[in-house]
Amino acid sequence: MLYPKDLLTLISYLKKFPGVGKKTAERFAFEFLNWDEKILQDIAKLLSNLKKHVRTCEECGCLMEKTNCFFCLQNREKHLMCITANPRDVYAIEETDSFQGVYHVLGTLISPLDGKTPDTLNLPHLKARIARLKVQEIILALDPTLEGDATALFIKEQFPDICASRLALGLPLGSSLDFIDEGTLSQAISGRQRF
Amino acid sequence: MLYPKDLLTLISYLKKFPGVGKKTAERFAFEFLNWDEKILQDIAKLLSNLKKHVRTCEECGCLMEKTNCFFCLQNREKHLMCITANPRDVYAIEETDSFQGVYHVLGTLISPLDGKTPDTLNLPHLKARIARLKVQEIILALDPTLEGDATALFIKEQFPDICASRLALGLPLGSSLDFIDEGTLSQAISGRQRF
Repeated sequence: MLYPKDLLTLISYLKKFPGVGKKTAERFAFEFLNWDEKILQDIAKLLSNLKKHVRTCEECGCLMEKTNCFFCLQNREKHLMCITANPRDVYAIEETDSFQGVYHVLGTLISPLDGKTPDTLNLPHLKARIARLKVQEIILALDPTLEGDATALFIKEQFPDICASRLALGLPLGSSLDFIDEGTLSQAISGRQRF
Repeated sequence: MLYPKDLLTLISYLKKFPGVGKKTAERFAFEFLNWDEKILQDIAKLLSNLKKHVRTCEECGCLMEKTNCFFCLQNREKHLMCITANPRDVYAIEETDSFQGVYHVLGTLISPLDGKTPDTLNLPHLKARIARLKVQEIILALDPTLEGDATALFIKEQFPDICASRLALGLPLGSSLDFIDEGTLSQAISGRQRF
């Protein structure tokens, strides 16, 4: 391809985004060319400082600005802990406004094929935190996938004395029974809720 | 939303990409957080130098690296000129390997509602180029849209002595007649090609 070298490199990076192929990456790169110089400089600055300004809290694993973790500073219900795979899920749960406990971000899920053994979960830190906060219930808010289920099961077994729950499986709001897959429907039946 | 400030700003910029909404922009921003520091610095540098390193050739309007226009330096068939709306279309045409003439990038299409009057096409420059290169045929490779058609018609009328053609309208390769819209099918019939 005859694209200028910088444009080519930019396209190769943009292709790394999830769900972005060659055509979309090219579209994005050309879009950058149309933007104001000021915006480009601004994004360049944001990206070059991103890891410095947006860090992971060593205590709970959530994202934090510079030195203060928003979640650790808050006065939250310490006996209830929600365990998520990544920091983004925390924001999704916060937006629902239906959880007041503390968070713990694992950072990954168990996936032996990708070299992610249970060791990558940093279990000693989770154990220490649960003991220190005197957690009485853990909510395993992990994806309902093979990796998520394996991780949930593994963590549950590490804490036999603590009540462990997981997010309900069932029909998404506004969905239509026609289009629901068999597995979800079966889970929705076996986990039916009193009406 | 509780996202760190830098992340929020980044998301607001990423939302400007065509076809990218809030959810996708958030996904992209979090993806950046997972990338190596080296890649982020690299992209930051690319973006901050983008307009310096990837410029528009003043002669043909194509993209060029620093000072040399790839297309102007090439020995091309000067009597045949392909007129496109933006530099990206030039690469799409080059990839087909079916055009050996020179290019002329307008940079925009006529669209009075968006304030793009015929004056924005820089017609004097196009006229001078066509005269200098002794162009005998122009191919109007513009989008088959209202704006593209209006622009094509306008340019054609400026050069009554030059043979003007446009890209063929018809069925895309591999398409199915079932799914082709009425307008396209009608164009494919009226523009039928000898078999």
